[in-house]
Amino acid sequence: MTAAHRLILIRHGESEWNSKNLFTGWVDVGLTTKGAEEARRGGELLRSRSLLPDVLHTSVLRRAIRTAEIALDEADLGWLPVRRSWRLNERHYGALQGKDKAQTLAKFGEEQFMIWRRSYSTPPPPLDDSSEFSQAGDARYADLPPELLPRTECLADVVDRMLPYWYDGIVPDLRRGQTVLIAAHGNSLRALVKHLDGMTDEAVVALNIPTGIPLLYELDESLKPLTPGGEYLDPEAAVAAIEAVKNQGRK
Amino acid sequence: MTAAHRLILIRHGESEWNSKNLFTGWVDVGLTTKGAEEARRGGELLRSRSLLPDVLHTSVLRRAIRTAEIALDEADLGWLPVRRSWRLNERHYGALQGKDKAQTLAKFGEEQFMIWRRSYSTPPPPLDDSSEFSQAGDARYADLPPELLPRTECLADVVDRMLPYWYDGIVPDLRRGQTVLIAAHGNSLRALVKHLDGMTDEAVVALNIPTGIPLLYELDESLKPLTPGGEYLDPEAAVAAIEAVKNQGRK
Repeated sequence: MTAAHRLILIRHGESEWNSKNLFTGWVDVGLTTKGAEEARRGGELLRSRSLLPDVLHTSVLRRAIRTAEIALDEADLGWLPVRRSWRLNERHYGALQGKDKAQTLAKFGEEQFMIWRRSYSTPPPPLDDSSEFSQAGDARYADLPPELLPRTECLADVVDRMLPYWYDGIVPDLRRGQTVLIAAHGNSLRALVKHLDGMTDEAVVALNIPTGIPLLYELDESLKPLTPGGEYLDPEAAVAAIEAVKNQGRK
Repeated sequence: MTAAHRLILIRHGESEWNSKNLFTGWVDVGLTTKGAEEARRGGELLRSRSLLPDVLHTSVLRRAIRTAEIALDEADLGWLPVRRSWRLNERHYGALQGKDKAQTLAKFGEEQFMIWRRSYSTPPPPLDDSSEFSQAGDARYADLPPELLPRTECLADVVDRMLPYWYDGIVPDLRRGQTVLIAAHGNSLRALVKHLDGMTDEAVVALNIPTGIPLLYELDESLKPLTPGGEYLDPEAAVAAIEAVKNQGRK
């Protein structure tokens, strides 16, 4: 069976707060040098496979935006049309934003820590608008009706706010025959993969997506994956990276 | 009189071929370290004046795209919506693309050199599609009808192909009340400034636009500049840079 549509997902490379082991969420931190190199390597993989997207979609967070810029520049595709949406943002981590992951684990214990990190439907406590880590006054969300701006999210919330952009912003590009690249975040991509692969709420809890390694989904006419889970362009690196993600917070 | 609309123009910083004194045109070269620093300084000027664009328009050439990326990242505005068009590209320099400016001056003499560089309506000889400096096979122009892809251009040609994007792509954003940033090139910006300021074909020949210094146009309801020529955010640097541009090809 040949693919009717091609979709490529890339999770941003290491950010300044990944490297400091802090919960990030909607806080707009940059990439580290290592993260920039992951992005460059992602672009190299696209180029070496001749996987040339026609259009780019990003979140409005600079770690995803820069990852796409670096990868596409490496693939000589910096000129692609770009669209951005807050609906592709990382999960809002609520009151955990800015907190140290290891300290949070030590303070609240393994069970509560894993509920906040991985429960499908239990969000962390909301973040107060007065917090230095709040986005309540951020110019990029000024046009959002206040009831849409999250103060915390669980993965179920991310699925709910991400899917309208999938249907309205991305599917039309695929239907036009375009190869679509999405540069986004661990949890917004988990939400999308859950939808594409028809995963249950339970199954998605164990899903990890490594950083910087393009994940190719070939889709049939009804936008179902030909290969469940898609195909990482560097499968060996993906396996190693998935193991590393699992151990976050435990350094 | 208060401005009804705000438009900011930025010409890309020094490119790899500026620094080598080669005619560039549509050849897609990157920025030098100096060019990247000019872009960063451009972003700093936007931020320090609190001139925050709502939307970015770029050409499809990486030196303009990178200039915008660097400037907006510096101004904490990397998340802005972006649109790109080949209609904002630099003038196609025809058979001069890839040629050394000083050698061209020495070979053809001052008069011919200045006609090619600055005549309003005389283009250089066309570039053959088989040239290594041709864009005839470039993927980013694959959707352009062949009769639209230039093989050479004079400034009059740039005005003709740029204006449709001004009217259809940019004016609607201004009418919506958005502050628009355009990151582009010496000649596509000269073409736009000629239009905005109602300059004659003769007057525009002497117009130079410096690199990396944002040029603010405040426009009235009918999109006429409140101040002819606009306002450079760093006027002293602009004067010095304009002198430097005039002397290109003579080093």
